[in-house]
Amino acid sequence: MRIDIIGRGNVATHLAKAFDSKSDVNIVVPRSFEGLRCDSDLYLISVSDDAITSTAERLSVAIGKSNSAVVAHTSGCTPLCSIGSLFKNPGVFYPLQTFSKHVELNYREIPFFLEGDNDYTRSILLSAANLISDNVSFLTTDQRQDLHVASAFACNFVNRLWALSYQYLEDKNIDFKSMLPLIKETLRKIESVKPIDAQTGPAARKDMRTISAHLDKLKEYPEMSAIYSMLTDSIIKSKND
Amino acid sequence: MRIDIIGRGNVATHLAKAFDSKSDVNIVVPRSFEGLRCDSDLYLISVSDDAITSTAERLSVAIGKSNSAVVAHTSGCTPLCSIGSLFKNPGVFYPLQTFSKHVELNYREIPFFLEGDNDYTRSILLSAANLISDNVSFLTTDQRQDLHVASAFACNFVNRLWALSYQYLEDKNIDFKSMLPLIKETLRKIESVKPIDAQTGPAARKDMRTISAHLDKLKEYPEMSAIYSMLTDSIIKSKND
Repeated sequence: MRIDIIGRGNVATHLAKAFDSKSDVNIVVPRSFEGLRCDSDLYLISVSDDAITSTAERLSVAIGKSNSAVVAHTSGCTPLCSIGSLFKNPGVFYPLQTFSKHVELNYREIPFFLEGDNDYTRSILLSAANLISDNVSFLTTDQRQDLHVASAFACNFVNRLWALSYQYLEDKNIDFKSMLPLIKETLRKIESVKPIDAQTGPAARKDMRTISAHLDKLKEYPEMSAIYSMLTDSIIKSKND
Repeated sequence: MRIDIIGRGNVATHLAKAFDSKSDVNIVVPRSFEGLRCDSDLYLISVSDDAITSTAERLSVAIGKSNSAVVAHTSGCTPLCSIGSLFKNPGVFYPLQTFSKHVELNYREIPFFLEGDNDYTRSILLSAANLISDNVSFLTTDQRQDLHVASAFACNFVNRLWALSYQYLEDKNIDFKSMLPLIKETLRKIESVKPIDAQTGPAARKDMRTISAHLDKLKEYPEMSAIYSMLTDSIIKSKND
């Protein structure tokens, strides 16, 4: 399969690496389209969300609107329809993972979520995804956006809580690394148990004495204090449901 | 070393298992003190936080207040002074981990935080902890309580975010398991990078268009919506600092 990846960011770089040796892959500079081939089977537009439409418009001109190649973006929150009218076979090729420049990943474990509005598009996307991953499925735009919202909670906000925890311990001259075995075990639990059933801590026990001792500790941390109260209420409420 | 563990919960059970074959360990029923030995080197009071003082008071009568054995509780948030006046050598023996009944753990990785107000107590606690863990240090009551607050953020609240994410995806007929590779990678990052530097997502990019699309998705989830806004603000503010 001939694949052109348009992009120079982390996702583009990692996809190119994943496809290397598995397909005839080629990386294309988004601004100049330097290196673009007009006879590829699949074009992946892997640029920042707000550059997808403008890049797609220029690509449509460059390869021709009647070109039967599949053209897919790789974004979680951008609808298929944002590039839908520009190509004969538009699609979405979304890897649910956080990519860093120099961090190695096992691509076969990364879930890929695909979308296409016709059988040909879906078969090309599926063949391509299967080359690099063992975890491939189809989602609608709406479901993919739901997944994107859920990942803000499960990853971005979780990381924020770790950052607050790190900062607080740093103020108190305690090494955050002490926390890692507990954090790892917390994650290990939800691989086999529903998170709601794995909930522990003072809020889960409705241990108001410890909760008020914690809030007392946080007196000089108004932001952490507000987050503490909100998430504690959320846990207590879930136990009443 | 002769060790009596007073308790029947998860912590007591796991500590007994960890000490088994490494010391002469004995488990004691908290209510009746059945099995209590009066000539042990170390007594560990491993009962719920609000039962520590009353259990300690009865233990002080049972073994004698002038007994030179070290008596330590295993709680993160209970001060040393809560049992301080009841024994000659009071202490704290706190394992920072979440214990579940049937889950195996590698005890040598668990961080133990010790406290004692004299050299003899500290040396006994250290010898005991070194028998089972490679990760032992001393903290004051104040620092141990700080760690306990931080662990509410890093573990209890993180689990709550996972639970909300799970529930939301369940409503949308999407399998939460799809999220696990991303969650694992998010954790893997903070093993080598400070969490604040590992922050990704729309809030970290100040991508207001995606943020408002997410809030739109959460219209029928007022609780998630409020948590989303608060943690998004917290991330944006951290990027302005």
